[in-house]
Amino acid sequence: MSTSVLRTADAWWVRTPAGAIRIDTDAETTADLLADRRAIDEATGDPVPVESLDLVSPVTTPCRVVAQMTNFVSHVKDAGMNPDTVPLTFFRKSSGSVSGPYDDIVKPGHVRLLDYEAEIGLVIGAALPVGADLTADSVADHVAGVVVTNDISARDIQLPKTQFYESKSYPTFTPVGPALVLLDADELKRFTDLRLRLWVNGEPRQDMTAADMLYQPLEALRALTRFQRMDPGDLLLTGTPVGTALSAPAKPVEIIASLLPAATKWNLFFKAQARNPKYLHDGDVVEVAVATDDGAIDLGRQHTIVRWVR
Amino acid sequence: MSTSVLRTADAWWVRTPAGAIRIDTDAETTADLLADRRAIDEATGDPVPVESLDLVSPVTTPCRVVAQMTNFVSHVKDAGMNPDTVPLTFFRKSSGSVSGPYDDIVKPGHVRLLDYEAEIGLVIGAALPVGADLTADSVADHVAGVVVTNDISARDIQLPKTQFYESKSYPTFTPVGPALVLLDADELKRFTDLRLRLWVNGEPRQDMTAADMLYQPLEALRALTRFQRMDPGDLLLTGTPVGTALSAPAKPVEIIASLLPAATKWNLFFKAQARNPKYLHDGDVVEVAVATDDGAIDLGRQHTIVRWVR
Repeated sequence: MSTSVLRTADAWWVRTPAGAIRIDTDAETTADLLADRRAIDEATGDPVPVESLDLVSPVTTPCRVVAQMTNFVSHVKDAGMNPDTVPLTFFRKSSGSVSGPYDDIVKPGHVRLLDYEAEIGLVIGAALPVGADLTADSVADHVAGVVVTNDISARDIQLPKTQFYESKSYPTFTPVGPALVLLDADELKRFTDLRLRLWVNGEPRQDMTAADMLYQPLEALRALTRFQRMDPGDLLLTGTPVGTALSAPAKPVEIIASLLPAATKWNLFFKAQARNPKYLHDGDVVEVAVATDDGAIDLGRQHTIVRWVR
Repeated sequence: MSTSVLRTADAWWVRTPAGAIRIDTDAETTADLLADRRAIDEATGDPVPVESLDLVSPVTTPCRVVAQMTNFVSHVKDAGMNPDTVPLTFFRKSSGSVSGPYDDIVKPGHVRLLDYEAEIGLVIGAALPVGADLTADSVADHVAGVVVTNDISARDIQLPKTQFYESKSYPTFTPVGPALVLLDADELKRFTDLRLRLWVNGEPRQDMTAADMLYQPLEALRALTRFQRMDPGDLLLTGTPVGTALSAPAKPVEIIASLLPAATKWNLFFKAQARNPKYLHDGDVVEVAVATDDGAIDLGRQHTIVRWVR
């Protein structure tokens, strides 16, 4: 059975049916904790109600945060691209963007179009140097587990700049948790059964399993380690399904736009998007949950509130 | 007068007219060394010929490597963009790509179009948290100095993937050094006088001063710290002038290409680029130098050889 690890400001916990049990460990970072697996497995003591804990991200920072671009067939089509030709592509997020599963999502004053992306985060458990020879048999030795993440995106920054790094790196733009769910090799094989769901103010916006992914974790990590080493505690976000606020303009609109000067094109685009009510507003409640439909693997549910600052 | 710091595998050195003098320090990282400024200033001992030292990158890794996209007016125009509307944009490189100033540049077997970009690297000397209030008066307190860098780029990876991260992050894709030149506030004001030059097999390819930059260091660091903290020893690459192998297709070609399916478009593009002799070949010698024309600030000259692996 999978093991769910929780974190508070001063302790690590393992989730049991009876409640959360404190882990007897000196671990300060997620990497430290993963190296102290025995402490997790042997946690004993009085369970406390999980609801009584003030949970923070179970992935500590600094760490590498790498993300896959357009990795769900449904999202690729919605973005006006062809799933047969979309390349396996990565970008970086600042780990300063990581926040807790119940923390506010803070929109900086200059950002206009705030969007959400439910994603499964892979947490690395053993080092993957550049050129690592990762196989179907060894991938579970290097992936410690999975977490719920939300890849918050400032679309009005992302699209004109073309590089995704800034638009997805502001503080609180990567809510992580609540649980880091440690998976053994057999459980990791059920990765495609994980269903990602996201709601805004209770309204369902995303609902799709990881079977819709173009590039599964083994292929993604093999491609990533052509150029980027990953260490324990590092995080790989694996892409989001259809349902974000942003969706692609129709093809003829896009071709006409390609003939316009850049400034004119973006002005028209932002004017149209400003009328799209799906972007996140002050006070919106964003919930994200990931689990298999049978509940055997359950990463829990984030509950975050959007705050606009001026 | 500016101070030039050099590094070998087991020591730090300060460059003097008489030769390199060993710095008496326990510093293991660039951040450690910058915190031990007195040891640099008080270095005494017998000078050894700089040529006798086996120099490595004066910027140690891991560190953050952030880079500015299209930041020279000449390069922006050459890339078919308008300098008046090109946004101030950043992307990440893996610090695993950092190599020494005389190390080989190794082209991975799957890469076809290998290109160069002479850049000035800013080395951070004091922490810049997100939201730092950086001013013209305080910028020199946070920028320790400058280094020669080459932002090696796999164009056939970079363009179809759109995100620059992978194409610029393979090992040896960021030669750094030879010297980390520490600048005081007055010297940093001469930043725009720095001239970047790059040669391939002795043929000049890039030659332009930093006065051609769209966004100077103060503005760039203010924008960067909206979303990314920087710590001592971190590196910001500030963009490259005109003269790379890649240059933009003419506007009519671009518009026709926008109507083609992606795979067809890239096939045509790569076929055309394969006939461009400016891309780097096995055995090519790439030299990069940065200095003011009066020689008062001199970052030295890199000498690297391109190696193709199969």
